[in-house]
Amino acid sequence: METMNVPSRATSATQPRTSEGVVAAGVYVDGRRIANIAIEEASSWRCKPGHVVWIGLYEPDLALLTSVQQQFDLHDLAIEDANHAHQRPKIEQYGDGLFIVARTAQLIQGRIAFGETHLFVGEGYLVSVRHGASTSYAAVRARCESCPRALARGEDYILYAILDFIVDNYSPVLDAIHEEVEEIEDHVLASAITRTQVERLYMLRRDLLRLRNAIGPLVEVCRRLEHDNLPMVRSTMRPLFRDVTDHVRTIQERTDSMREVLAFAFEASLLVGQAQETAVSKKLASWLAIIAVPTALAGIYGMNFKHMPELDWQYGYLMVLGLMLAACTGLYWQFRRVGWL
Amino acid sequence: METMNVPSRATSATQPRTSEGVVAAGVYVDGRRIANIAIEEASSWRCKPGHVVWIGLYEPDLALLTSVQQQFDLHDLAIEDANHAHQRPKIEQYGDGLFIVARTAQLIQGRIAFGETHLFVGEGYLVSVRHGASTSYAAVRARCESCPRALARGEDYILYAILDFIVDNYSPVLDAIHEEVEEIEDHVLASAITRTQVERLYMLRRDLLRLRNAIGPLVEVCRRLEHDNLPMVRSTMRPLFRDVTDHVRTIQERTDSMREVLAFAFEASLLVGQAQETAVSKKLASWLAIIAVPTALAGIYGMNFKHMPELDWQYGYLMVLGLMLAACTGLYWQFRRVGWL
Amino acid sequence: METMNVPSRATSATQPRTSEGVVAAGVYVDGRRIANIAIEEASSWRCKPGHVVWIGLYEPDLALLTSVQQQFDLHDLAIEDANHAHQRPKIEQYGDGLFIVARTAQLIQGRIAFGETHLFVGEGYLVSVRHGASTSYAAVRARCESCPRALARGEDYILYAILDFIVDNYSPVLDAIHEEVEEIEDHVLASAITRTQVERLYMLRRDLLRLRNAIGPLVEVCRRLEHDNLPMVRSTMRPLFRDVTDHVRTIQERTDSMREVLAFAFEASLLVGQAQETAVSKKLASWLAIIAVPTALAGIYGMNFKHMPELDWQYGYLMVLGLMLAACTGLYWQFRRVGWL
Amino acid sequence: METMNVPSRATSATQPRTSEGVVAAGVYVDGRRIANIAIEEASSWRCKPGHVVWIGLYEPDLALLTSVQQQFDLHDLAIEDANHAHQRPKIEQYGDGLFIVARTAQLIQGRIAFGETHLFVGEGYLVSVRHGASTSYAAVRARCESCPRALARGEDYILYAILDFIVDNYSPVLDAIHEEVEEIEDHVLASAITRTQVERLYMLRRDLLRLRNAIGPLVEVCRRLEHDNLPMVRSTMRPLFRDVTDHVRTIQERTDSMREVLAFAFEASLLVGQAQETAVSKKLASWLAIIAVPTALAGIYGMNFKHMPELDWQYGYLMVLGLMLAACTGLYWQFRRVGWL
Amino acid sequence: METMNVPSRATSATQPRTSEGVVAAGVYVDGRRIANIAIEEASSWRCKPGHVVWIGLYEPDLALLTSVQQQFDLHDLAIEDANHAHQRPKIEQYGDGLFIVARTAQLIQGRIAFGETHLFVGEGYLVSVRHGASTSYAAVRARCESCPRALARGEDYILYAILDFIVDNYSPVLDAIHEEVEEIEDHVLASAITRTQVERLYMLRRDLLRLRNAIGPLVEVCRRLEHDNLPMVRSTMRPLFRDVTDHVRTIQERTDSMREVLAFAFEASLLVGQAQETAVSKKLASWLAIIAVPTALAGIYGMNFKHMPELDWQYGYLMVLGLMLAACTGLYWQFRRVGWL
Repeated sequence: METMNVPSRATSATQPRTSEGVVAAGVYVDGRRIANIAIEEASSWRCKPGHVVWIGLYEPDLALLTSVQQQFDLHDLAIEDANHAHQRPKIEQYGDGLFIVARTAQLIQGRIAFGETHLFVGEGYLVSVRHGASTSYAAVRARCESCPRALARGEDYILYAILDFIVDNYSPVLDAIHEEVEEIEDHVLASAITRTQVERLYMLRRDLLRLRNAIGPLVEVCRRLEHDNLPMVRSTMRPLFRDVTDHVRTIQERTDSMREVLAFAFEASLLVGQAQETAVSKKLASWLAIIAVPTALAGIYGMNFKHMPELDWQYGYLMVLGLMLAACTGLYWQFRRVGWL
Repeated sequence: METMNVPSRATSATQPRTSEGVVAAGVYVDGRRIANIAIEEASSWRCKPGHVVWIGLYEPDLALLTSVQQQFDLHDLAIEDANHAHQRPKIEQYGDGLFIVARTAQLIQGRIAFGETHLFVGEGYLVSVRHGASTSYAAVRARCESCPRALARGEDYILYAILDFIVDNYSPVLDAIHEEVEEIEDHVLASAITRTQVERLYMLRRDLLRLRNAIGPLVEVCRRLEHDNLPMVRSTMRPLFRDVTDHVRTIQERTDSMREVLAFAFEASLLVGQAQETAVSKKLASWLAIIAVPTALAGIYGMNFKHMPELDWQYGYLMVLGLMLAACTGLYWQFRRVGWL
Repeated sequence: METMNVPSRATSATQPRTSEGVVAAGVYVDGRRIANIAIEEASSWRCKPGHVVWIGLYEPDLALLTSVQQQFDLHDLAIEDANHAHQRPKIEQYGDGLFIVARTAQLIQGRIAFGETHLFVGEGYLVSVRHGASTSYAAVRARCESCPRALARGEDYILYAILDFIVDNYSPVLDAIHEEVEEIEDHVLASAITRTQVERLYMLRRDLLRLRNAIGPLVEVCRRLEHDNLPMVRSTMRPLFRDVTDHVRTIQERTDSMREVLAFAFEASLLVGQAQETAVSKKLASWLAIIAVPTALAGIYGMNFKHMPELDWQYGYLMVLGLMLAACTGLYWQFRRVGWL
Repeated sequence: METMNVPSRATSATQPRTSEGVVAAGVYVDGRRIANIAIEEASSWRCKPGHVVWIGLYEPDLALLTSVQQQFDLHDLAIEDANHAHQRPKIEQYGDGLFIVARTAQLIQGRIAFGETHLFVGEGYLVSVRHGASTSYAAVRARCESCPRALARGEDYILYAILDFIVDNYSPVLDAIHEEVEEIEDHVLASAITRTQVERLYMLRRDLLRLRNAIGPLVEVCRRLEHDNLPMVRSTMRPLFRDVTDHVRTIQERTDSMREVLAFAFEASLLVGQAQETAVSKKLASWLAIIAVPTALAGIYGMNFKHMPELDWQYGYLMVLGLMLAACTGLYWQFRRVGWL
Repeated sequence: METMNVPSRATSATQPRTSEGVVAAGVYVDGRRIANIAIEEASSWRCKPGHVVWIGLYEPDLALLTSVQQQFDLHDLAIEDANHAHQRPKIEQYGDGLFIVARTAQLIQGRIAFGETHLFVGEGYLVSVRHGASTSYAAVRARCESCPRALARGEDYILYAILDFIVDNYSPVLDAIHEEVEEIEDHVLASAITRTQVERLYMLRRDLLRLRNAIGPLVEVCRRLEHDNLPMVRSTMRPLFRDVTDHVRTIQERTDSMREVLAFAFEASLLVGQAQETAVSKKLASWLAIIAVPTALAGIYGMNFKHMPELDWQYGYLMVLGLMLAACTGLYWQFRRVGWL
């Protein structure tokens, strides 16, 4: 099994997948990587005191997962969950190990793409399993390795670093949505909404719904890491997890606010649309009235009665034309005055 | 009383009912079926150490239920519930026995059909009673029998297997609804909604409401199996029930999401409908204006005044025709310019 | 004071009131009525061991209530409540006695009529006080008397029997509403809603609101009877009260579902109404266009210009008629094609 | 400082204010008033065993409040609250004293006017401070004095009596709103809503919102008086406070119901309005069609073609008139048949 | 490092920023300022018994924050939060110190501007860090210094004073919104809403949403200061924090009420808009009918039939004119009668 030498070099951020599904596997002592290992050796390294094994997988096949399971004695159900994605974010304790599921979000060509990360944490090891659209954790690894003192705190620190990274990655997604929401609301308030904008609004609402479903349970995961007496989280780590909880709550608040704002925008565009409909009706009515009066007048003088004195007048025609003009102008100004035109 | 030899052969999945209401009745030792029994013998088998009696009924009559009740000493109220369906999902403890009600869902010709399953579990026995549309548990039995090591864990494992099966069966139902929701939302956003689509939307909302009512209380049932210290659920089974809880919560989240999405679709189609109504009004107004101008003009030159110099002009007629054409074309382009046509 | 001999005979189900407000008053030993008593004797009977006094009142006057109060030493506030109806469903403990208020519902000529029942329960007695529209409890009494073994359990069994009866009586009310909801939803989806249907929808929503207000607090009453350690409810009765709780929750779920369904129906009929409005506009626009073209054409050939060559053509008239017909037919098919007609 | 002799005489219910802000100040022993006192003497009276000082103030100035504060050793913050109104209903414990804020409601010329009452209760005293529109508590005092046995229970009984009075006073307000709601809903369902009715609906919703804000926190106040072990509320008073809690919950339920009913009325009037709009469109379309056909026909026979054989027919004119009449009648009946007219 | 002599003089309320970010830094003994200090001396002063260091910063750079951190031994995460704003209101305990985040609101040219204040409190010190739009706390400092007895209570009193000030500053913001809401609701109910008003409504809703997000978590902060046994808040301070909690809840209630009122206004303006649309349709229909009748009549007598007896009548023309007038007048009054005109 191939192992990576320097993760930041061997894996490009956009396409971090190796053919075997192992992105990186290293052993750390005092916050420094002392070796890149094969999955099969993991168990022996992990048991040495002060050693921490950190393995990163991307969409592994079942064989690889089973191999990892054997090394760290993971629970069947957790492995089953990790094998086929589409889990809700959750935290579960199996004996001395924790199993954490988080959803990740990324902007790919203007649309939100969701991924999943499954984390196995226990005494001396952390295994991350990524599914779908998600940034590689090579960045987290690089940042951790650049700060050995922090990394020396152990596997719960790595857990914190990854969760913090996941939550951080929601921010640009929300920023992008925020920008689009503001753009749409300008349109909505400026004139009646078009079908394309309704569609965009609708899609944004769906995206925000999915975001909320991804973030909501994550708050609970973070809160449990902060408050519950989980065996593999030292109490000195609590302020860090509290910080993540806080962060995730801010994300949640922003998501919920934008959901409400979009609901406001829907209602506002109903009102604007109604106002426009009424304006169209008023214009229609006004012009119909203006054109109907000369038509009616012309009709009258188009009648074939023998005895219609006006028809014989020298200036009858001009008078009628004048009358038509006066009526139209009068109506026009009247409609202007009451705001129908 | 007839008993089934091999359930997967004797009962077809679609029509598993025997005339007497007993689908299967077997005794298991160490996960292997050692005998098919008659209901009347159940009590004696059940009391032998290490023996588990597993009975499956489909819409039994009261006589059969009473016979089962006598064998396992079940509570009157539970039997009464099992006799006439239409119970909410619930879990109840009667002495040493559990009584569980779950609703099942199935797709039959594109519509969701709901059924009910009632489970009696106690020391050495599990009785399942199915009502209405529901898949036979022959598949569960077959799968359990093919894995004797798991089945050897006893009646609480069977309980887990059945609940897991019930929850699994919600997935295709949700998938089908999901597909239809996506189809409808394409229509809704592409053009104004038709009456048939409103009806379909409405029916989907009703179906999702029923699904939510079926799934909501089931979460609580699973949660209690996972957390409460129920006497007939061994603590080693907890991770399994936690898995079912998790699964049911995912189903619930999907149901709730689709409910919200349909609410969004309703609102979006109101907006699209309003936009279309306004577009129709604008088109109507534009064409009326275009046709009204030549009509008025023709009316004027149809007047019978003696002195209308234009009437005598050589090219008066052509001039007026030209004027009409110019007015119509001008108006047409004007309306195009402002987006009314 | 008159007492009833056999309640099922002496009181008709529809008009169970005696002039004095006492519907029935009996003493039970081992589930069998041993005597019909006057209110004044109640206290002496009640104190004999194994004796249970069961009194049924209907809209009693204050004098009668005061007399009952003296017999069983009831609290002033409870008597005050029982005297003027319009209480919320509740359960209150006064010393050794319970005071329970429940709302009852009945269908009277298609409209829901609400009533109230107040129950005083204590060691050796149960007093029921009915107000407004409510079925007599003679049926409960008859059923209980026909099963002395159950009735022998004492006053808490009677309490259960009455609550069960009250909750059972909600079912036909809900069934009737359900039927009407289904009828209305057929109309709503088939064509735009009429004012009468809006009114009916509105009334149904109000009725369901009142039902929810009646049932909601009753859940809490039943739950407390099931879970709290109330002195006058023996623990062996708990499964029975759990059954009532369950029943009342089913009623509540159905009520809530119908409330949601009616809200869906409102929204759906808005959409259908909007679609119909647009359809009317399209039809109007189409016919106006079809009629306007020949009118304009006729106007042109009705002009009085000297030099209009077509007017002198032999077949000019026919040609114009043909042109008109062609234009109208062309427009007609065009509008059919785009679905406006 | 002037004190009142007999409160029911000295203070008129509508204008109970004396120039100094003291409405009444009395000392009670065994439920009987033994003296009317000046504020400055209050402390000395209060300390005598079995004596209760009951003072009623109306919009007192700060000097008076400070004087009261000195007599009963009240907390600065409570006095500050009592000085400027606009507090939320709340209950606060300062040492041995309770400070309670409640909002009061009154109907003044058909509009709800809100007031505030602040109550200071402690060993041997109760001070009530009223602000804004609120009925004088002279009625409470009179009622209490007419029943010395109850009043003899002490300051917590007075507290109960005042709270009960406040809650009772909500009933006529709700009754008036209820009546108006019913009147409006008749209008709404009978025909499309007018602007005045929309305004009335809107105002009712605002009023109910304010009522809810007044009543909601009061439930919590009453609940705490009933359940918390407050030092100045004897346990024998609990049933009384439970009664007030109950009462306030009934008020709350009615308020919430009317809020929902008004929301239903809004939705219903949208539907009725939409139905009416469609009806108007249909009528417009029908009459336009009916009038357009003879106009078009007349236009045709108004053309000036040389060769139009019908023009020379003896009965051509009558025929055309007949044709027009037939077309109009036919259209008219057709529109009647489909319900457009 | 420059320190301020007298904060109320040195800092203008609108532009309180010094170039270094330190607004004020003083040491207090017994509620009196004994020295203005440099940040670097803070630690030594703070440790002297009875001395309290109070430092005010405005948008400090990281260097300054780090310097403050060293003086008071603050937690890294809190400093990181204080460095980049956009935190949710929260309270966190780090060892013996508290870290509090609150959002502030101010009216700047009619729009709400939000700011953030971060507070570090511990034994003998309080540091406030302001970000964005927020009033300087010079006013708080001045008020506290003018009342040394209160200030002598220590750092938790200063904390109270600042929180109280923050909460107080929400009131004018809410008042301004309230005024605008009332103005808009007058417009909305008087006539159909214009696009500008929809936009204003929409913006108010967004502002109120942000206000709610700012205030909601602050309630929790205040509640924890009041109820939790935080080491640096003496129990004698609890009534003060309870007062702030109360105040913040009032603000919250007002915000929520206005949110609901705006939702009502949206719905009401939909209804008013619908009513206006219908009124326009009715007017259009009425005038079309009035003008169409004489047009049709004129068309009839414009036909060129040879035999049209009326054409030869002496007063045929006048008769037809009279007929036209009568028809128009009749229709006009008819439409007035049914309320269409």
